[in-house]
Amino acid sequence: MNFASDNTAGAHPAILAAMAAANEGSEPSYGEDRWSRRMNEALADWFGTAVAVFPVATGGAANALALAQIAPPWSAVFCLAGSHIDVDECGAPEFYSGGAKLVAAGPPGRLYTPADLAAGLARHPRGVVHHVQPGAVSITQATECGLVYAPDQVAAIAAAAHGADLRLHMDGARLANALAHLGCTPAEATWKAGVDVLSLGFTKNGAVAAEAVVFFDPALAEGFAYRRKRGGHLFSKSRFLAAQVLAMLEGDLWKSLAGRANAAAAALAAGLSAAGFAPAYPVQANEVFVRLPRSLAAALSKAGARFYPWDDSEPERPLYRFVCSFATTAEEVESLQIRLKSAHASL
Amino acid sequence: MNFASDNTAGAHPAILAAMAAANEGSEPSYGEDRWSRRMNEALADWFGTAVAVFPVATGGAANALALAQIAPPWSAVFCLAGSHIDVDECGAPEFYSGGAKLVAAGPPGRLYTPADLAAGLARHPRGVVHHVQPGAVSITQATECGLVYAPDQVAAIAAAAHGADLRLHMDGARLANALAHLGCTPAEATWKAGVDVLSLGFTKNGAVAAEAVVFFDPALAEGFAYRRKRGGHLFSKSRFLAAQVLAMLEGDLWKSLAGRANAAAAALAAGLSAAGFAPAYPVQANEVFVRLPRSLAAALSKAGARFYPWDDSEPERPLYRFVCSFATTAEEVESLQIRLKSAHASL
Amino acid sequence: MNFASDNTAGAHPAILAAMAAANEGSEPSYGEDRWSRRMNEALADWFGTAVAVFPVATGGAANALALAQIAPPWSAVFCLAGSHIDVDECGAPEFYSGGAKLVAAGPPGRLYTPADLAAGLARHPRGVVHHVQPGAVSITQATECGLVYAPDQVAAIAAAAHGADLRLHMDGARLANALAHLGCTPAEATWKAGVDVLSLGFTKNGAVAAEAVVFFDPALAEGFAYRRKRGGHLFSKSRFLAAQVLAMLEGDLWKSLAGRANAAAAALAAGLSAAGFAPAYPVQANEVFVRLPRSLAAALSKAGARFYPWDDSEPERPLYRFVCSFATTAEEVESLQIRLKSAHASL
Amino acid sequence: MNFASDNTAGAHPAILAAMAAANEGSEPSYGEDRWSRRMNEALADWFGTAVAVFPVATGGAANALALAQIAPPWSAVFCLAGSHIDVDECGAPEFYSGGAKLVAAGPPGRLYTPADLAAGLARHPRGVVHHVQPGAVSITQATECGLVYAPDQVAAIAAAAHGADLRLHMDGARLANALAHLGCTPAEATWKAGVDVLSLGFTKNGAVAAEAVVFFDPALAEGFAYRRKRGGHLFSKSRFLAAQVLAMLEGDLWKSLAGRANAAAAALAAGLSAAGFAPAYPVQANEVFVRLPRSLAAALSKAGARFYPWDDSEPERPLYRFVCSFATTAEEVESLQIRLKSAHASL
Repeated sequence: MNFASDNTAGAHPAILAAMAAANEGSEPSYGEDRWSRRMNEALADWFGTAVAVFPVATGGAANALALAQIAPPWSAVFCLAGSHIDVDECGAPEFYSGGAKLVAAGPPGRLYTPADLAAGLARHPRGVVHHVQPGAVSITQATECGLVYAPDQVAAIAAAAHGADLRLHMDGARLANALAHLGCTPAEATWKAGVDVLSLGFTKNGAVAAEAVVFFDPALAEGFAYRRKRGGHLFSKSRFLAAQVLAMLEGDLWKSLAGRANAAAAALAAGLSAAGFAPAYPVQANEVFVRLPRSLAAALSKAGARFYPWDDSEPERPLYRFVCSFATTAEEVESLQIRLKSAHASL
Repeated sequence: MNFASDNTAGAHPAILAAMAAANEGSEPSYGEDRWSRRMNEALADWFGTAVAVFPVATGGAANALALAQIAPPWSAVFCLAGSHIDVDECGAPEFYSGGAKLVAAGPPGRLYTPADLAAGLARHPRGVVHHVQPGAVSITQATECGLVYAPDQVAAIAAAAHGADLRLHMDGARLANALAHLGCTPAEATWKAGVDVLSLGFTKNGAVAAEAVVFFDPALAEGFAYRRKRGGHLFSKSRFLAAQVLAMLEGDLWKSLAGRANAAAAALAAGLSAAGFAPAYPVQANEVFVRLPRSLAAALSKAGARFYPWDDSEPERPLYRFVCSFATTAEEVESLQIRLKSAHASL
Repeated sequence: MNFASDNTAGAHPAILAAMAAANEGSEPSYGEDRWSRRMNEALADWFGTAVAVFPVATGGAANALALAQIAPPWSAVFCLAGSHIDVDECGAPEFYSGGAKLVAAGPPGRLYTPADLAAGLARHPRGVVHHVQPGAVSITQATECGLVYAPDQVAAIAAAAHGADLRLHMDGARLANALAHLGCTPAEATWKAGVDVLSLGFTKNGAVAAEAVVFFDPALAEGFAYRRKRGGHLFSKSRFLAAQVLAMLEGDLWKSLAGRANAAAAALAAGLSAAGFAPAYPVQANEVFVRLPRSLAAALSKAGARFYPWDDSEPERPLYRFVCSFATTAEEVESLQIRLKSAHASL
Repeated sequence: MNFASDNTAGAHPAILAAMAAANEGSEPSYGEDRWSRRMNEALADWFGTAVAVFPVATGGAANALALAQIAPPWSAVFCLAGSHIDVDECGAPEFYSGGAKLVAAGPPGRLYTPADLAAGLARHPRGVVHHVQPGAVSITQATECGLVYAPDQVAAIAAAAHGADLRLHMDGARLANALAHLGCTPAEATWKAGVDVLSLGFTKNGAVAAEAVVFFDPALAEGFAYRRKRGGHLFSKSRFLAAQVLAMLEGDLWKSLAGRANAAAAALAAGLSAAGFAPAYPVQANEVFVRLPRSLAAALSKAGARFYPWDDSEPERPLYRFVCSFATTAEEVESLQIRLKSAHASL
């Protein structure tokens, strides 16, 4: 019953098998190997367009490097309150960008909108030397609270960003979960909707450690290779990153894994609702947020369930986060529901 | 016949097996897992002292993070000309430190000495506000030209560094090769000789991607966890880094692999000498540098040998680098020698 | 009728006279001159305690350098929404600190409180590696909306900061105005109330360009001289900065100038109130904020008055800022009132 | 007899008079005032071309900001050994650029040449991700050892730089002295010779504190205003910087002051030569470097002369630096010569 995070699961066995399979003979290092070249081609196919791809091993690196590429040091990165880039990377975007400012629109728990951007732009007018300048827009897909942007919602934000001469970054740590929910193509969810640069995550979806910064306009990536290198994020034995990505794309493994996680979350949400605890947000990806009586949550923890308290603005009924992963089993979900009912009854 | 680098080899199978073995069930992430805790204990045992350990995935990250921890932004990091930190990390130490200056003592191709440090200190007097201040000392073990510091040589540098109130960093990307050469304990080669912080490398020696920053005085690591995190170098599924390190320590795998690489280099050096091409530097670890007629080198390349030109200050007889790894076979070395003789004869 | 800012006035003639008087003979540079030494002593007297003083020429430099000294790159600087450091320095604190995060408590238009700090600390728990860590607290005296902290209010914030192991910075760009209002000693308003480092401003109060970073615990200034130098803020002909500061302290010029500005603001506030436009905030220093019908403000502008729109959250009745300086005359204030009445009547 | 530096002199009285004259009435701040606009026009006239001008108060700020504008964080700034940017700014260029690397060609005591640049480029090949990339070229006019580049020498460097797609920066802290020596126009010495961005110094030549970053292609200055602001180098009462620059240009004050300093240095050099101590380098600007017996230098110091030891590579006969300024009198030079003869006789 581990619902703490989608990164507490290990990796899918196919990923480790692919890494082992890539361990044959000597290969050029630093991205010149056969697997890396195949990965580049596979991602171009996957997206149906030319892309410049830079694999890294953590989502924090992908996000911070991508933002530093598009947002000058004296700029504002507009995002939603609660964005991972703003609250969960210990200032990585600020570090990599040389001091850009994260300007987060509140409240969290919803989708970012063109109106949020308009408000941010109003407070950071271009050309006033005293204020940080508009730099970039970043959205998370699926969001940190498990919501999914429809392509037209992304397109609306992209249009507003581009209209203000800003680039749109998408933190796709859970893009696979979003795609599984949307049923659209990777292209439709990203560059066709106006995304300029994507942090494409595989780790939460079952890789060992594999993410990639993807530029849909390769010209936008100028100098990025140096940025990544001096961040310490260029791998010598690059084949082992590429092999993970290739394994994920092979036979749409990414989709079946994300679908599994989403389904588990949906089942969990249904169970919670049935027990009288409706999720706080629509459950569209692999995360479920729910308010529970504090004592009930304690009882669940005691029974072995792992999950995080998220917000205690209502002290007696805090908001809790439950995350499902590719490895979450029907038994785990069911087991949680049983515990929930029993705990609820005994309160 | 790939002598291009020790990172063109894949990983040792035991490493991949260990990663697969670590893929069981759910575990806390970000270093709180069982493997990470075991790794910390195993490294404390290995060094015979309390250590603060921070695994990362690249040597560049380890070096840059370690130096940033001990050298203020307005300081000089004293090192040897040709040091990896100075010439091969695209400015990573400058980036992570916030602009510290690498002050490299020439010429390369030798060991750093207390006299080098004294000269550096003379040019960067403490307390003169116009000059960057003494910040740290960094040496590479084994060096970038394949030389190994004896413990007393390290101790002399450490004494000079500490006497100037500076910390000593060791870039141990090839520490295993140095230890295999020295036959001393990890402790003797590092903290007992005065090293304060170590970049401990496993990747070149057969890991997939596993390095660690090791502080011998845990108090020196204050704040380092945040530094690593905002560099994007904290892994969510940390067990897979720890499993690699554990596999390397298990049964002294590190030692047999490094010994193998060193032996291959020694055999290669012997062969080259026998053919009339004595190595430019004593071959103490897994690298062989040798001056060859340009035409001979070209013939070798054409015959399929991979190696790097290193320095063409003598245009007709450039310096070439041959690196052996754990995966270098006796056949490869022999094959190279045969090609060498044949090419030599035909010139 | 220039109420745009206290920096649109020139300098008080005594300042320029002092600079001219300091222009005698040759002197050591970079702070070793006689005037700089006298300034250091004079400020120690003024504060009644040992201080480490670092003059610079802009308030932005003073603030950013001071914050960088006390807040690590991975930390949060807690401040009030609308703080100059957060919104009017184009990211200077982020730049100098290496990417620290300004965490501003809303709403603006009031004093910062220990409760604000407690809330900020709750959202940035110490020891959680994903979040930026508590770094420093910064308050502005007088605030950007013209309010003044009483010494015990500062002391309460300082106690809360120190209790959380944080240093308290005071942006004293208008400290003189605050002191003139409070009638207390510089010591009482700063270090006796717990301020650790002060940006002491003279420019807005009539200097050409003279500010100083003042550390009340000289040990806290370790390394600061290098930080200032590499920021390009160490003046070669330092005597001309020191001469300005000395002239300000001479005969309490600072107090009479600040008193003049405060009195003008009070008169302006009274006039506005009499005309039915009560200031939005208590007028305690030299700034008056008032909501005016947009058409009335336009009429005033047309009549030659200079002032800034500040906030148009009420579009028909925006908030305007009027700032008085040492150079504001009774005639200017009276003239504005006359225009106001006349414009008001004609609407 | 103060020959320690050209910044130990005060300011020329005309500068202080101009500042006092600029102290009339209220003016927009931050560069929008009348004096700043006149300064911009005057410098465009002076250079005979459109320029983007950004005044600051220190040469360190001008250099570091200018270099950060043209050299990416992952790049090398090629310069001569002994350059002020490399050894006398406590790492300001590294700080402002976000970690660029100063690559200094030795030995010092000469002019930088296209061959130096070619050598630097050879060691930093474009496109190799492990190495910092070619970023910019910087030369000092007059150099730190008092030499002056002829326009065609600058043009040769500029051609080499532009041929490598690099911008040429000129540290013109003593440009006036160089111009006074060359007798050419400011245009000929700078943009007509290919200089892209200039640190134009007035402080050493008699200003209180006034420098300017001058871009000869205004498009190159994009974003620079924000860079300067967040460095804390945008002055609120900008008129006082502009007034200094205007006073320097008025009636070619800059030229008469620089001519005076150069003439004093020439007289000093002649006197030293006559006494048997020929300058180490041709004396073309306002600095004289000369080897003197240590005891003789000590005697001169004891007699009240101020000057700096520069290099003690010949311990018995160190190299000393004597700098003349606009304020150096014929009496001072004569007095030094008398002391020199007398001391020499008594040794």
